[in-house]
Amino acid sequence: MTTPTSAPHANLAVTGTIGIDTIEAPTGRAEEVLGGSCTYFSAAASFYGPVRMVAAVGDDFPASGHAAIMRFPNIDTAGLEVRAGSKTFRWGGKYRVDMNSRDTLFTELGVLAEKPPTVPQSFRDSRLVFLANSHPAVQAELLSAFTNRTLAVADTMDLWINTARQELMRLLKMVNGLVLNYDEAELFTGKRNPVTAARHILDMGPRFVIVKKGEHGCILVHADGVCSLPAYPTETVVDPTGCGDTFAGGVMGALAATKAADPGSFESVRKAIVHGTVIASFTIEAFSLDRLVKLTKPEIDSRYQDYVNMVRV
Amino acid sequence: MTTPTSAPHANLAVTGTIGIDTIEAPTGRAEEVLGGSCTYFSAAASFYGPVRMVAAVGDDFPASGHAAIMRFPNIDTAGLEVRAGSKTFRWGGKYRVDMNSRDTLFTELGVLAEKPPTVPQSFRDSRLVFLANSHPAVQAELLSAFTNRTLAVADTMDLWINTARQELMRLLKMVNGLVLNYDEAELFTGKRNPVTAARHILDMGPRFVIVKKGEHGCILVHADGVCSLPAYPTETVVDPTGCGDTFAGGVMGALAATKAADPGSFESVRKAIVHGTVIASFTIEAFSLDRLVKLTKPEIDSRYQDYVNMVRV
Repeated sequence: MTTPTSAPHANLAVTGTIGIDTIEAPTGRAEEVLGGSCTYFSAAASFYGPVRMVAAVGDDFPASGHAAIMRFPNIDTAGLEVRAGSKTFRWGGKYRVDMNSRDTLFTELGVLAEKPPTVPQSFRDSRLVFLANSHPAVQAELLSAFTNRTLAVADTMDLWINTARQELMRLLKMVNGLVLNYDEAELFTGKRNPVTAARHILDMGPRFVIVKKGEHGCILVHADGVCSLPAYPTETVVDPTGCGDTFAGGVMGALAATKAADPGSFESVRKAIVHGTVIASFTIEAFSLDRLVKLTKPEIDSRYQDYVNMVRV
Repeated sequence: MTTPTSAPHANLAVTGTIGIDTIEAPTGRAEEVLGGSCTYFSAAASFYGPVRMVAAVGDDFPASGHAAIMRFPNIDTAGLEVRAGSKTFRWGGKYRVDMNSRDTLFTELGVLAEKPPTVPQSFRDSRLVFLANSHPAVQAELLSAFTNRTLAVADTMDLWINTARQELMRLLKMVNGLVLNYDEAELFTGKRNPVTAARHILDMGPRFVIVKKGEHGCILVHADGVCSLPAYPTETVVDPTGCGDTFAGGVMGALAATKAADPGSFESVRKAIVHGTVIASFTIEAFSLDRLVKLTKPEIDSRYQDYVNMVRV
């Protein structure tokens, strides 16, 4: 019997933001609550196995935020930098009546305007890496620290498509997968059809693209096939913030946990997006991470089964 | 061995419009082409078995229109009235750049402003009836002619929700199923969430509601369960006109062809909406019925298999 050099689950890292959000929605208001792409991603991924978090906060980051992150025992916070004299990223957003679109009320970059966090030496052997939304040059720099990676996936957004297109295209040559929203896929490629748009992005380098459609689910366009899945039609919609990051956390967490030889294969990714879809459907049921903090594995398993029954044809 | 009183396939009837459409879209223009809810529905349903068409046109209805309908041998046109001195319904629409919304350029009601068509005596034993979009009082009147019906499904639209709500609510006590668009479900119920909206409609009488979401697929909310399915992600999008009616035609055609004892059961309808989804994905690939006219059963079967593979989880 051979001793594995790394546990199958101990190889997922995520880079991104930890923030303090203030959310206004038709369903209520949440002030100065825990948010950030890295936070939502890690919380979701932690249900599938260990996840290594690389992010920075200021020394104003509240104890309650630390406590909330600590409630997910699978999150390894060795890469969480607390910077003396710096301010934590803050974001305020207001959802419109339909809950599908929102306006940014304010953005206080804080540490995000400083140098990126450092990837701890102990994280550099991570095999799966998720680059949550950030400037693509920063994503590329962070990614290069993971010299042992076998699967790298990036998220992006309209801001970088509009202002850092060349850097984004360079990043696309370094990653295996890209996750972006429906409208962003069109913005990036000029192609309205999401499958056509995703095929254009595949031509830029990645092996797969996941187009997120919010309440309408997602489309996976992979070099080896196309898969479209609806969202879980939850009736309790309180706060969509972080759903995309939770989705990505479920996808990457499931990929890190897979026993498949090739976690980036069409079959692996199509199975993983089901997990992402299911766990994202919980996030929306409460503000901030309130639902994820209370979530249990049996609840996930039960909804997974509901979902499988629902889309069975 | 007993002799069945009616063939399993000979029992689907549809009431609705046959029209002459003029379509403007980013993909081109089609002038004075065959359209109408009854036409698209019947063409789609005819791939699954016989379908009885109840509709009226004026004596200006072109020979090319008749010829196109005749290219679907399973359509029984005994209920197609050609009214001397009357004008055929005409509609002009222009699709916006995103192809998901359109503006009506003109509407010439013609025969639609006259009395409804007569249901032929030979059609009155129809067991499955689809009431394509029309004033709900007209739908109710037509429906009452089908005294042998076991499954009645209606379509509706924003116009009737806004102007004939009481008649629509009366109709809902007479039908087993309702098909309507996402935005119409919200308009009708005041509930943004499509599942919540559909549950409210179930309280008004029907056993199931199908919420159509265009390129995002559909949600079936049935007294016995919920099913959500994506659309087939076709990359060839030329003209969305008639996709909803084609979808309904595929659904009802499949239900008419089912050997299930209860064609309105959750299991029957969930299987049928897959057929509706698949056949609607062809309609969008060309103007008018141009794609359906050329469509073959092997093409449908092949895409059905593609679709099943695509949504497999």
